[in-house]
Amino acid sequence: MLTFSNTLKRVVQQRGQVVATINGERRHSWAEFGQRVARLASALQGLGLKRQNRVAILSLNSDRYLEAMFAVPWAGGVYVPINTRLAAPEVEYWMANSSSEILLVDRSFLPLLPHLRQTLPQLKHIVFMDDGELPEGLLGYEDLLAAAQPMAAVEVDPHDMVALYYTGGTTGRSKGVMLSHHNMLFNALQGMVVQTYLEQETFLHVAPMFHAADAYNAMCFCTIGATHVFAPGFDPQTTLELIGQESVTRVLLVPTMVAMLMNYEGLDNYDISTLKSIFYGASPMPEAVLKAAMAKYPELEFMQAYGQTEASPVLTILMSDDHVPEGPRSRLLKSAGRAVPGVTLAILDEQDREVERGTIGQICAKGDNVMLGYLGMEETTAETLKNGWLHTGDGGYMDEEGYLFIVDRVKDMIISGGENVYSVEVEQAIYRHPGVAACAVIGIPSEQWGEQVHAIIQTKADNQTSEAEIIKHCKSLIAGYKCPRSISLQSEPLPLSGAGKILKNELRKPYWEGMAKSVN
Amino acid sequence: MLTFSNTLKRVVQQRGQVVATINGERRHSWAEFGQRVARLASALQGLGLKRQNRVAILSLNSDRYLEAMFAVPWAGGVYVPINTRLAAPEVEYWMANSSSEILLVDRSFLPLLPHLRQTLPQLKHIVFMDDGELPEGLLGYEDLLAAAQPMAAVEVDPHDMVALYYTGGTTGRSKGVMLSHHNMLFNALQGMVVQTYLEQETFLHVAPMFHAADAYNAMCFCTIGATHVFAPGFDPQTTLELIGQESVTRVLLVPTMVAMLMNYEGLDNYDISTLKSIFYGASPMPEAVLKAAMAKYPELEFMQAYGQTEASPVLTILMSDDHVPEGPRSRLLKSAGRAVPGVTLAILDEQDREVERGTIGQICAKGDNVMLGYLGMEETTAETLKNGWLHTGDGGYMDEEGYLFIVDRVKDMIISGGENVYSVEVEQAIYRHPGVAACAVIGIPSEQWGEQVHAIIQTKADNQTSEAEIIKHCKSLIAGYKCPRSISLQSEPLPLSGAGKILKNELRKPYWEGMAKSVN
Repeated sequence: MLTFSNTLKRVVQQRGQVVATINGERRHSWAEFGQRVARLASALQGLGLKRQNRVAILSLNSDRYLEAMFAVPWAGGVYVPINTRLAAPEVEYWMANSSSEILLVDRSFLPLLPHLRQTLPQLKHIVFMDDGELPEGLLGYEDLLAAAQPMAAVEVDPHDMVALYYTGGTTGRSKGVMLSHHNMLFNALQGMVVQTYLEQETFLHVAPMFHAADAYNAMCFCTIGATHVFAPGFDPQTTLELIGQESVTRVLLVPTMVAMLMNYEGLDNYDISTLKSIFYGASPMPEAVLKAAMAKYPELEFMQAYGQTEASPVLTILMSDDHVPEGPRSRLLKSAGRAVPGVTLAILDEQDREVERGTIGQICAKGDNVMLGYLGMEETTAETLKNGWLHTGDGGYMDEEGYLFIVDRVKDMIISGGENVYSVEVEQAIYRHPGVAACAVIGIPSEQWGEQVHAIIQTKADNQTSEAEIIKHCKSLIAGYKCPRSISLQSEPLPLSGAGKILKNELRKPYWEGMAKSVN
Repeated sequence: MLTFSNTLKRVVQQRGQVVATINGERRHSWAEFGQRVARLASALQGLGLKRQNRVAILSLNSDRYLEAMFAVPWAGGVYVPINTRLAAPEVEYWMANSSSEILLVDRSFLPLLPHLRQTLPQLKHIVFMDDGELPEGLLGYEDLLAAAQPMAAVEVDPHDMVALYYTGGTTGRSKGVMLSHHNMLFNALQGMVVQTYLEQETFLHVAPMFHAADAYNAMCFCTIGATHVFAPGFDPQTTLELIGQESVTRVLLVPTMVAMLMNYEGLDNYDISTLKSIFYGASPMPEAVLKAAMAKYPELEFMQAYGQTEASPVLTILMSDDHVPEGPRSRLLKSAGRAVPGVTLAILDEQDREVERGTIGQICAKGDNVMLGYLGMEETTAETLKNGWLHTGDGGYMDEEGYLFIVDRVKDMIISGGENVYSVEVEQAIYRHPGVAACAVIGIPSEQWGEQVHAIIQTKADNQTSEAEIIKHCKSLIAGYKCPRSISLQSEPLPLSGAGKILKNELRKPYWEGMAKSVN
């Protein structure tokens, strides 16, 4: 049975003395990791955590983040990873929506606590999962562990919810994606059939751990009992240093990070020869960046994944031997790869009938990795999982060899620097400005971010506003990464369809013309 | 969802033009394989096959065997692979017990048909899955395919039974192990996480396809869409020839076959350099044979599996890097390896409590690969799966690194040349001879067979019998491979326990003394 506790027990059984986690100077073996998880679980139970209760985690990457991901399920609970780039009202919404009664937080997010304490009466305990002086009113992570007796894992059903990963939505409101133990661990098995990870390897967590993409890797490398190294977040220097110091063999990067690494001045001062592969995904990879990286590091394997949180998240992988820079097979660099074993992938029309190869339709999937549903949203869940298919909301086509090519996001989502931005949410914020008559938010190409958020605004005749004023207005309402990075102001109306809908494709055209929009 | 049809559809989607099967001169691509499966399914449906109905397969290895394994489930049915070494009454029992109404048979087993027709009134159709002249009263396999329209796969639940693999039992009666789609395909995913099979590879089916061990490999190499080569059965020359001719990369062999290959006179005339690994299991591997093979082919990877049909069948694998001929790690050659991902393995005492490492107990396991149960044997099923654990009936211990060492078969099963022989069944046959007062059947060491069936018989004072006479007597009652290969006749009584049970351990001792019984 695929449960988090069974997974951990097997690794402790086989690899107890092997290094599990490296966080700065701190190292723990799998036996120690198992003990710490069993103690933290016991402490959380002591704080009142019951089966299926939620524990929110708001922290940069660390070994304790991984411990918490196992300790909460060990006690029968559900962990809720919070996006570290949210504004306080957004964190509040996720925590309220998930009914989180316990929050694990590190030093970076202490400034949010006054707001959360004020707005979340159900928030009973806050655990400080960081080092240094313990802030007043918080419980110390290591104190809790020291005081607790390790407990036996609570018996759970593998199809019980284990985590709530929030994702945006077309309505602009985040949706809580309910993933089961089986969902997440099955996805790791599926991927590892084609990705040949070995237990002797070392994975670097530098992409944010609150994302399903990093969680996938966490599950893979915990399933086989490999070593995990943590950086609080991404910066080129730390990443390069850690790869050399800890002989890192595997890393997950969003395309923006790959670009930043390749453009880093000191790159050639670092020996990254232990690195076997760069696994990338979560946003469009500029082909120039990819080709430059492939040329610079010909021994390095590049693997691309496409998926979404609702699929735990991997649906397809473009393998390293499909990364060919020249010749007819170089067309695959524009592909998101092929369905991993255990995923049934199909391109469906609006009646959920499979279309011919080469025809564009909605990318749909079935598999044991597909979510339980959206928390408290039965209708949206039913619609998304209609006829047994996960409807990704992405448009694409499949070639004769089963390679998937993504051509559009049906839901108009923008992926900027690895973050999902839902245009409707940004539009709603912009619309609250008194000078705005109409607006449309689209993604436009960006070498740095893959896509950047761009707003096209029809101003009201009697109200003169400016680009800077609109951006400032947005920043008071939504997270910084969601705010437009560029704005076109105009007095003419936006192009409309017969039904009165703004024709976003028309607006996008001039920005993308002549570009192969190899997005995933 | 892990179903046979989803698995095949994915491979056809991605690898339609790649060679799927090679059987002598006959080659089919995955697209053709898929078409043939959909046609055969349609033909079987036309013969009356309904959801969960059983179709027996009695045949040597062939591409059509693999087609049938997919076509029966494609039509919603259950396939029943019949051991090719059974006597007619045993085949009759399996077919009657499984309620098989359709039989697929090749030329080798035509002599059994009169008996089966006479004793099995429910047997409606017999399909001749061989080449050459069609025997009277049989349906031609290719005729059926040619006449049928390909059908869409019947929608099934992944937890529906897909196959009935029969195994012996301590009572001597075979038990039908009900395996689901999910059981079998999940086991393939589990194994492939650690066994790095690539889609470009070629697997040789030379071990019998009616065995769960070969079925595991069939599932692996169908999941990734690799190429399958078939030999009707094992002989050293054909095996070596096919490896060279078809650039075979992977093969499954029982230890007896490894020994026969290594002892084959013409071995050095063959180039087997394409071969990456020999996967072995299903019976004890004589250490001398293994070490000789490792020394002769240092580039070749050896992997050992331990499991049982009830586990679909793989529970543990001893990886190639654990095959070290010298030094302290060479002790692992006596191990059956470690639990594969997704298997929870434990050594339990008689109250199902986990024992300390190093302590002998019963080998028990949990996992999505554990069978649905035994057909029509609710009590035995409940006992075997008590407390959620699959009780293997094998005794063993686990070391500090999670390596499993098997020390005894609790159920007194003998594994001879890869075949399970249940001592009680043999004893029952011997007891039917008028000259036998008491008997015990045990496994004794054999370089050729791993273990060989040995009988110790107390003769009646008034009845002089001989070794040859007893063997002849047995051959009239049970399959040849179950009959004793050696017999000790004595007039003294056999050693008994206080409760009056024959002390088999006492009888075994002189044969195994001084030997490391590295059985799996």
